[in-house]
Amino acid sequence: MIYIERKERFSAAHQLYNPNWSDEQNREVFGKCSNKNFHGHNYTLTVTIKGEINPDTGFVMNLVDLKKIINTHVTDKLDHSNLNHDVDFMQGKFSSTEVLAVEIWKILEPEIAKHGAQLHKIRLDETLNNAVEYFGE
Amino acid sequence: MIYIERKERFSAAHQLYNPNWSDEQNREVFGKCSNKNFHGHNYTLTVTIKGEINPDTGFVMNLVDLKKIINTHVTDKLDHSNLNHDVDFMQGKFSSTEVLAVEIWKILEPEIAKHGAQLHKIRLDETLNNAVEYFGE
Amino acid sequence: MIYIERKERFSAAHQLYNPNWSDEQNREVFGKCSNKNFHGHNYTLTVTIKGEINPDTGFVMNLVDLKKIINTHVTDKLDHSNLNHDVDFMQGKFSSTEVLAVEIWKILEPEIAKHGAQLHKIRLDETLNNAVEYFGE
Amino acid sequence: MIYIERKERFSAAHQLYNPNWSDEQNREVFGKCSNKNFHGHNYTLTVTIKGEINPDTGFVMNLVDLKKIINTHVTDKLDHSNLNHDVDFMQGKFSSTEVLAVEIWKILEPEIAKHGAQLHKIRLDETLNNAVEYFGE
Amino acid sequence: MIYIERKERFSAAHQLYNPNWSDEQNREVFGKCSNKNFHGHNYTLTVTIKGEINPDTGFVMNLVDLKKIINTHVTDKLDHSNLNHDVDFMQGKFSSTEVLAVEIWKILEPEIAKHGAQLHKIRLDETLNNAVEYFGE
Amino acid sequence: MIYIERKERFSAAHQLYNPNWSDEQNREVFGKCSNKNFHGHNYTLTVTIKGEINPDTGFVMNLVDLKKIINTHVTDKLDHSNLNHDVDFMQGKFSSTEVLAVEIWKILEPEIAKHGAQLHKIRLDETLNNAVEYFGE
Repeated sequence: MIYIERKERFSAAHQLYNPNWSDEQNREVFGKCSNKNFHGHNYTLTVTIKGEINPDTGFVMNLVDLKKIINTHVTDKLDHSNLNHDVDFMQGKFSSTEVLAVEIWKILEPEIAKHGAQLHKIRLDETLNNAVEYFGE
Repeated sequence: MIYIERKERFSAAHQLYNPNWSDEQNREVFGKCSNKNFHGHNYTLTVTIKGEINPDTGFVMNLVDLKKIINTHVTDKLDHSNLNHDVDFMQGKFSSTEVLAVEIWKILEPEIAKHGAQLHKIRLDETLNNAVEYFGE
Repeated sequence: MIYIERKERFSAAHQLYNPNWSDEQNREVFGKCSNKNFHGHNYTLTVTIKGEINPDTGFVMNLVDLKKIINTHVTDKLDHSNLNHDVDFMQGKFSSTEVLAVEIWKILEPEIAKHGAQLHKIRLDETLNNAVEYFGE
Repeated sequence: MIYIERKERFSAAHQLYNPNWSDEQNREVFGKCSNKNFHGHNYTLTVTIKGEINPDTGFVMNLVDLKKIINTHVTDKLDHSNLNHDVDFMQGKFSSTEVLAVEIWKILEPEIAKHGAQLHKIRLDETLNNAVEYFGE
Repeated sequence: MIYIERKERFSAAHQLYNPNWSDEQNREVFGKCSNKNFHGHNYTLTVTIKGEINPDTGFVMNLVDLKKIINTHVTDKLDHSNLNHDVDFMQGKFSSTEVLAVEIWKILEPEIAKHGAQLHKIRLDETLNNAVEYFGE
Repeated sequence: MIYIERKERFSAAHQLYNPNWSDEQNREVFGKCSNKNFHGHNYTLTVTIKGEINPDTGFVMNLVDLKKIINTHVTDKLDHSNLNHDVDFMQGKFSSTEVLAVEIWKILEPEIAKHGAQLHKIRLDETLNNAVEYFGE
């Protein structure tokens, strides 16, 4: 069993906001992240898969295929988007890094399984200092 | 003459858009950067000043002072903002990295002069691969 | 269960030295790290916590709170300090990265538990190439 | 139990190629990585070991010793080499990052055991975006 | 006048070798860089251009265009290549970083002039610690 | 004319302190940097030289030679040292990054001239966010 990781990047706007709360409550909990006009980040997505080494290629999975899966199903939709308004799989959800990581897992897990490998970890870096990791459970 | 640089970071949303053009023209020139719902970045601002070394301190300028100037006049206003809507010194201007760098120069140049040093360069990194440098002329 | 990490940085001096040994023994084992006048590093501390996503916020824990805990209890004490002389929780202990990581765990573990999350990992990068990770057991 | 990591770097050429396949098949599976004249990378090798803290030193293992082991047995052989032709422990093997990580594990595991510590992980970064991790099983 | 920079990356193999010298002389001057089977690097190319800000776009030059020029004329030819054998504009030249930077300048300078901007600097990072800069004169 | 740069790293302790001032004055100007027990940093030194490309090697100067000069004359003396007490060329001088950069210039300038190249710039990064550049005048 060996682990392979691939990084892809995207830039997006978002706002942290609970629609069941008043603006004051949102400001109190989310601070400047609740700015109504949005703010944004350069996100780095790291996808780690695991599997056996294929004796014909020396690969767990072709990284060209992994890159295509990530781009088509995830980062093409997220890049230069507004996470609160433009992304189908984020409709009605908090645009926190935690929630985004879980939703990316749900999308990538079956796609990677089709290629005979297993998704192991989704890591999402939001800034130089803040990141999230999700292992699917 | 010696050069000192200080990095500060901020996260902001923006949209590239020329209000004199149709949406089609904007899409053609600015591509996905013209998304009406905005996108965003983690910007890194690097401020370089120059001056003589003070014989009493070994400093050109105290970096604690330089950091305060940058935060008060620039990055506190930009962090978690929308460059198109929330920033006083960007009203009515393109929110391109080029224009933002020039406007930051105009603000910081007189502030740094008050401390007996000279602003030398404004550098603004927008993504891992794109950056702008401005020397005031 | 999801994992959140926050990085904070501090700069400190230290000396590796066993007071039960002669200077020769110390020099032999610790090499230039045993320099009596100390040397120093820019340390990066990465704190990883784990927990469930709060359905009202989309957060495991507010990163503003996590940052405050780390600063108040750990990095404000370590920054611009001498690990051998200035830090209350390092008195009488080796100032190796390993020992420092364990002591930081002991301090942060109960503080993070008060916020309904669990400390998962302490990572301490001492240089570009050397780092330590501790999981509390 | 605490985990210590050390990074070492090397630059090498390689070609991905299955000698049982035609050139067309190789081109189809490995793409530009199958270039007959080779291409190359700056690899970063991260070796993580685990063990108890020695009460006389505050160390799991002296990093000077760990560095020597990695250099002597692995990176001195790989640096400025051709992975397909110049490296004894890669003869007859695919020069994929996956296979290289497994072979490095086999070499380092017994060497580190001689110093009373345990090898925990081999990580190999091939580019800014691609990496492999191996835990020995 | 404002300066814009764009980074692109490529991975290549090369050998430092003077064909007028004996193998011993080559080994003496170029050391392990003269390995006949080649070694390789992940290069980062930074292209800096300068010009006036266009009042209709806020841009000196559209970075999408700059990226296309760099890829088409330079990095598509260099990526996954052997600098000594595969690259038309390096035929019969030393594959040192210095020479490569000068040849890239010659190719990009007229292409960027066609877009109304001026090439200012070619920077080529060969490893974490070694880089070259060329200003065209 | 082409520019070549080489990075070397060292870890050192220091204290910012003016012996002609009271402790209060020192604390007021230098803040926590005046800590009597010292603090420390991982410094990165970047040395940039300029010259013509040698037609026999494709080099301005052999980077192996440049590295040796930097190590022998500068970084071997600075690494794991106390800048205020252990370094011959810093005796009686402020240990600010500015002063250190100037002193490194004085040492390296004649050594590099012996190899037919010219020192162009000394850059010293003290932390992730603070750096100094000196061009010799």
